[in-house]
Amino acid sequence: MAFEFGSVLSAKATAQAGQFSGYPPYHFVGGNIDEPTVPVDALGDAVRKVIRDQGHAMAKYGMDSGPQGHLPLREFICDCLKTRAGIAATPEEVLLTSGSLQAMDLVNKALLNEGDVVLLEAANYSGALSRLDALGVKYVGIDLDEDGMRMDALERSLSDLASAGRKPKFIYTIPTVQNPTGSVMPVERRREMLALAKAFDVAIFEDDCYADLVFAGTRPPAIYALDRDQRVIYCGTFSKTIAPALRVGYLVAPWQLMRSILPLKTDAGSGALEQMVLAEYLPGNFHDHVCGLLPVLQAKADALCDALDEHFGECIEYDKPVGGIYLWVTLPGNVDTDRLFQAALNQGVEINPGSQWTVDGAANKHRMRLCFGHPSIDNIRAGIAKLADVCFEEFGVPVRSGNVPRSV
Amino acid sequence: MAFEFGSVLSAKATAQAGQFSGYPPYHFVGGNIDEPTVPVDALGDAVRKVIRDQGHAMAKYGMDSGPQGHLPLREFICDCLKTRAGIAATPEEVLLTSGSLQAMDLVNKALLNEGDVVLLEAANYSGALSRLDALGVKYVGIDLDEDGMRMDALERSLSDLASAGRKPKFIYTIPTVQNPTGSVMPVERRREMLALAKAFDVAIFEDDCYADLVFAGTRPPAIYALDRDQRVIYCGTFSKTIAPALRVGYLVAPWQLMRSILPLKTDAGSGALEQMVLAEYLPGNFHDHVCGLLPVLQAKADALCDALDEHFGECIEYDKPVGGIYLWVTLPGNVDTDRLFQAALNQGVEINPGSQWTVDGAANKHRMRLCFGHPSIDNIRAGIAKLADVCFEEFGVPVRSGNVPRSV
Repeated sequence: MAFEFGSVLSAKATAQAGQFSGYPPYHFVGGNIDEPTVPVDALGDAVRKVIRDQGHAMAKYGMDSGPQGHLPLREFICDCLKTRAGIAATPEEVLLTSGSLQAMDLVNKALLNEGDVVLLEAANYSGALSRLDALGVKYVGIDLDEDGMRMDALERSLSDLASAGRKPKFIYTIPTVQNPTGSVMPVERRREMLALAKAFDVAIFEDDCYADLVFAGTRPPAIYALDRDQRVIYCGTFSKTIAPALRVGYLVAPWQLMRSILPLKTDAGSGALEQMVLAEYLPGNFHDHVCGLLPVLQAKADALCDALDEHFGECIEYDKPVGGIYLWVTLPGNVDTDRLFQAALNQGVEINPGSQWTVDGAANKHRMRLCFGHPSIDNIRAGIAKLADVCFEEFGVPVRSGNVPRSV
Repeated sequence: MAFEFGSVLSAKATAQAGQFSGYPPYHFVGGNIDEPTVPVDALGDAVRKVIRDQGHAMAKYGMDSGPQGHLPLREFICDCLKTRAGIAATPEEVLLTSGSLQAMDLVNKALLNEGDVVLLEAANYSGALSRLDALGVKYVGIDLDEDGMRMDALERSLSDLASAGRKPKFIYTIPTVQNPTGSVMPVERRREMLALAKAFDVAIFEDDCYADLVFAGTRPPAIYALDRDQRVIYCGTFSKTIAPALRVGYLVAPWQLMRSILPLKTDAGSGALEQMVLAEYLPGNFHDHVCGLLPVLQAKADALCDALDEHFGECIEYDKPVGGIYLWVTLPGNVDTDRLFQAALNQGVEINPGSQWTVDGAANKHRMRLCFGHPSIDNIRAGIAKLADVCFEEFGVPVRSGNVPRSV
């Protein structure tokens, strides 16, 4: 008779996974990227060289660099952040992490107690929201417009909290290619956010995971770069530019906070080989690689918009992407994307329902996120046609596909 | 004026790290391994091949294998566990983790609530104890002898708890090259542990991280292999056989538990490149590599014992290692290894004080753990000579070094 693990689970073990059975044919979810652009030949040469030259150091946890991760990669990140984002950081202010998700977990662990409050964009990364839920942390959604988090709304929330004698632990923001809306916050608004944070004595956690993917090739300076008060914590990643499965992200923070975060990273270090290969490959190649990647993603974004225009027409709204790998779509009010998600998945099309990507899920049931980084352009076209079919069957919209009226 | 992160830290952020300044010259701590044996040339060839052949899959989180990790490596682990440890597991019962520490974190998260009780060996891995402390979980230390956890002591603790109306969540054990004592539990005692676990209806968490390092080349079947009730959770690693900085470990559990553990692994997967290189390198090489590693470690163990005999003589006690990379040493009762740790570190020698590696720290202040995997034989000899000097200066023992009496 089998032992019943179900009877001894913790309060945290509330969900059950199914067995993995592959991806659906039309897969518009997850921060996956374009397969052909992964630089496998160059990475292969770089990793062979670096493991032969320096691989013996892997006999030590932390190699020769200690708990903050491979020093040559931290040095490259400092150079890169200086050039691309205007950030002046030293390697002691950089922690290499197992993806930027671990950076987020560490910041949350260092700063948040149950019952604390965080302010964040009202449409947001589902993994950020679920993490705060799991920690018992409250969050207040701040409205967005086409330039990202609205500062009048932020000021109102800060004032309301102050009136109630409360202070949020930090403002969590994705200012550069916001997830899921895709907005890029202009530099003036970044300065306004810093001024508000200063006025209300609040920290900012800037998640810049998609910042290298602005199609124009340049981006506004990071909020971290504009800060004069050591008020900002920053995270980034190579998941979106090199490969997500590498799991190499980074956290940047003033040493006064970093010293308290390091003891919370109890994993004996992140994967060294992946840090080593990036340290070898990136310095001579990162800029050119990203320059080559952007038109590929731009073409996929265009293909997605074209397919949506053709198959959904004027019944949907979206802002044309200026970067990133996802699109935030507003459908007619009668469409419930939780239902659409299930119906579409049954037909082999996976989408992110709006309820999971917003603070007020009920008010966003007619929205969805579509990721376009991984599928091919042909797959995008076919998948959106299929999605429109399913949506019409379930909700009676869109009533036309291209110039052709639909009938039941 | 800088924002004061010190004023907004969470209850968990209680420690502060110093900046890393390299390792001391004599470094007898940490699960590090022998540098020259890391197979860098073969790994370099394997990783170049695999990234060129399969690297495009890294564009997806989880590649083609989903959330449990690279399927070819899980398949190899199943083969390897069958041959080496007698375990019959399917790839669906294996989860690849970022080191076995993540496996431990996941098991703890899935099963433990604050206030729960765990039974474990009274001398133990400091990271296991600190994790339980951080979770607010109580633990009861079970006495050890030269064959590992004592079953009479285990039965007494289980009975005592039962009398008090309590049941431990699991028995945590390192039966094969116990950390820090180095004992290997005979198969009969493993069966006894299973019988006790069944009688008291308790799960077992078997940590087999060092099990490949038994110098004789074979080891008793895993407790997991002897179990007929799906009562055992198992973890292992390639940190001690290939390289710790790779951070590739694994968890084996019945699907009825695995399905509840998977949703708790919220890191979007462990590093894929490291899983890929191991899947490519290990099938044709693991057995021979380990066979080549064992005499190297055996020679280091011998060198450490010889150096201890020469410089500490009869004032210390230890069991000669039959495997692994550490030695558990009992010093004279007047030696306080917390003090010795600091004094030795000032002289460039780092050791693990017994207080951190035992449930009853106060009763084990005269013990220490010495890791011998990483330092060279010459470094071991010189470091132990230095340690004896420091010990004599601080505590007046050992009074002889070799045949030469010491004088102050």
